[in-house]
Amino acid sequence: MLYAVVMAGGSGTRFWPLSRVARPKQFLAIGTARPLLTETIARLAPLVPTSRVKIVAGERHEAGIRAVCPELGPDALVVEPCARNTAPCVGLAAIHVAREDPDAIMAVLPADHHIGDDAGFRRLVAAAAERARAGEIVTLGIRPTRPETGYGYIHYDRKDTALTGDGVEVCAVNRFVEKPPRQVAERYLEHGGYLWNSGMFFFTARRILDDIARLLPRLSAALKRIEAAIGTPGYGDVLAHEYNALESVSLDYGIMEHAERVRVVPADIGWNDVGHWAALSDFADSDAQDNVVQGECVLVDAHRTTVHAEPGITVAAVGTSDLVVVATPDAVLVCDRERAQDVRKVVNALKARGRSDLL
Amino acid sequence: MLYAVVMAGGSGTRFWPLSRVARPKQFLAIGTARPLLTETIARLAPLVPTSRVKIVAGERHEAGIRAVCPELGPDALVVEPCARNTAPCVGLAAIHVAREDPDAIMAVLPADHHIGDDAGFRRLVAAAAERARAGEIVTLGIRPTRPETGYGYIHYDRKDTALTGDGVEVCAVNRFVEKPPRQVAERYLEHGGYLWNSGMFFFTARRILDDIARLLPRLSAALKRIEAAIGTPGYGDVLAHEYNALESVSLDYGIMEHAERVRVVPADIGWNDVGHWAALSDFADSDAQDNVVQGECVLVDAHRTTVHAEPGITVAAVGTSDLVVVATPDAVLVCDRERAQDVRKVVNALKARGRSDLL
Repeated sequence: MLYAVVMAGGSGTRFWPLSRVARPKQFLAIGTARPLLTETIARLAPLVPTSRVKIVAGERHEAGIRAVCPELGPDALVVEPCARNTAPCVGLAAIHVAREDPDAIMAVLPADHHIGDDAGFRRLVAAAAERARAGEIVTLGIRPTRPETGYGYIHYDRKDTALTGDGVEVCAVNRFVEKPPRQVAERYLEHGGYLWNSGMFFFTARRILDDIARLLPRLSAALKRIEAAIGTPGYGDVLAHEYNALESVSLDYGIMEHAERVRVVPADIGWNDVGHWAALSDFADSDAQDNVVQGECVLVDAHRTTVHAEPGITVAAVGTSDLVVVATPDAVLVCDRERAQDVRKVVNALKARGRSDLL
Repeated sequence: MLYAVVMAGGSGTRFWPLSRVARPKQFLAIGTARPLLTETIARLAPLVPTSRVKIVAGERHEAGIRAVCPELGPDALVVEPCARNTAPCVGLAAIHVAREDPDAIMAVLPADHHIGDDAGFRRLVAAAAERARAGEIVTLGIRPTRPETGYGYIHYDRKDTALTGDGVEVCAVNRFVEKPPRQVAERYLEHGGYLWNSGMFFFTARRILDDIARLLPRLSAALKRIEAAIGTPGYGDVLAHEYNALESVSLDYGIMEHAERVRVVPADIGWNDVGHWAALSDFADSDAQDNVVQGECVLVDAHRTTVHAEPGITVAAVGTSDLVVVATPDAVLVCDRERAQDVRKVVNALKARGRSDLL
């Protein structure tokens, strides 16, 4: 059976002032009607019923997850006692999933990305899951549209390519590459054999636990001890003790770069990682002047202006261009579109001022 | 005795969202510690005790005036039943002042201007009042610093100039000129015989009532009927009836342009009419990057950015330049500095949407 494992442990600061410590990006509707986490689960619903959804997140986000996904059952949440990057996160999910279904296929998905073509996405997911059932590790690779330096890339073998019965292309992966410098990214784009690493992976629980045993033996040993405690009163203590002692390591670095039989499905699905406020203009509806508006707003000669106004606040923009404006009851952000990455500097400044009420 | 007559009937929309119908500019602290009306009265306090301050305004602003000037006595407010421009306003004040002191000198002042040099201003006021006592009409004329097209100008006679005992220059006025087109304003600036009309006038109550009788006989007749009703139970009804029937006419157009023995005192007093949000940067304290901040604010690489944040709201500006940001609990304005005049378009748009709650 196909399980969705949604990694919802993020605590991003780049969507401040909308995102706060208690309300990170995955709980926000950013350029979308519903929160990104809700969209992620709803998008898969035709393939994966909510009874087979696992959400991995920190304890402090449980209430938030229940609020935006009220239909989830009591076992849907896999709590991480602390953050240890994606390899432990996926391993923890795998032991829980394997306990319910030893032959389970896992679709590992970030909670907070945007996908424009839901039906196209599901078609690729179904094909990737089919290959995963056969024991392969499959990842979705996004066809790059610009020399982005903020993503990892996947170099694939254009000669070692097969079509699934559904006509979906599945390619052999040569290697995973870390975020490249600009010039290298430009070469990747020209060369054409590179895809963006979307962070979406498909494998059976058995396959990933085998690879963890081979490549990350200490994690594997810890997972076995945690698994033995599932369903016992001591589970929480064992989990906390073991997890705390783990090394932080990403699935890409710890497993993918060394695993065998890794395949990639090239994807054109309107994907966006919603990395910062300026990304909204890449996928949200805009007007003829390229303004993107969420909430109550009056625009007077505004151009390329992205506005997000929380309920009860009206934003007026007069003669603005290339600007992001976000209004919440206690904090307002006005940011040059090219500087959207620097919103974290605001968060740091507030931290330094001791304004934890705004974080 | 010198009376201050402060015209506080304005209902400006250019300081939206801070200014609202019930809270026009004169009640706001704009680039100042206290509301502009409070500053106007405090600035004159060494010359004019509050017992000789008259504030002319509409009834709906009485509570606002009392709130920002709690030290005013019960007779300080001269209520206008409706707005009829400055000539009726000054005439109404004159009959009230003359009743208290038939020899009173009136300093007629807008409620909502900024003056940087209070002591210098009082020196000019004292000199102007002295000349007014002798029966002249005196106005303060601001030395222009740019070819402004938003003000009226005063052409004065540089040969017909005298110094008061205090060394204050007092010049004969050739004529008052309406707001000029750009090219004409540039000529005025080059020519050098022109001053900005500040809207500040000095005359005895007797002199202005005589001029009204001569130049605006219908207003004069109405004022006489109103005067006769002062102190009677019928005052309110008479005032409403007479005032309502009056023509709107400005003091400049109705009296100044035709009056004799009009003098002007050239003034270098850091005057600013606080015409729109962008004007703040002309007089409020700024940082090394020409940012002006009122309230709680985090600036990251901001330049020439004016921020006004109401209490309880933190504004963050990242990479902004030439921008005005105003944050209130229910409305936020973001405006290109050059477009500050167009804030009224926002107010009009909200009116059209029926959002009277935001006006």
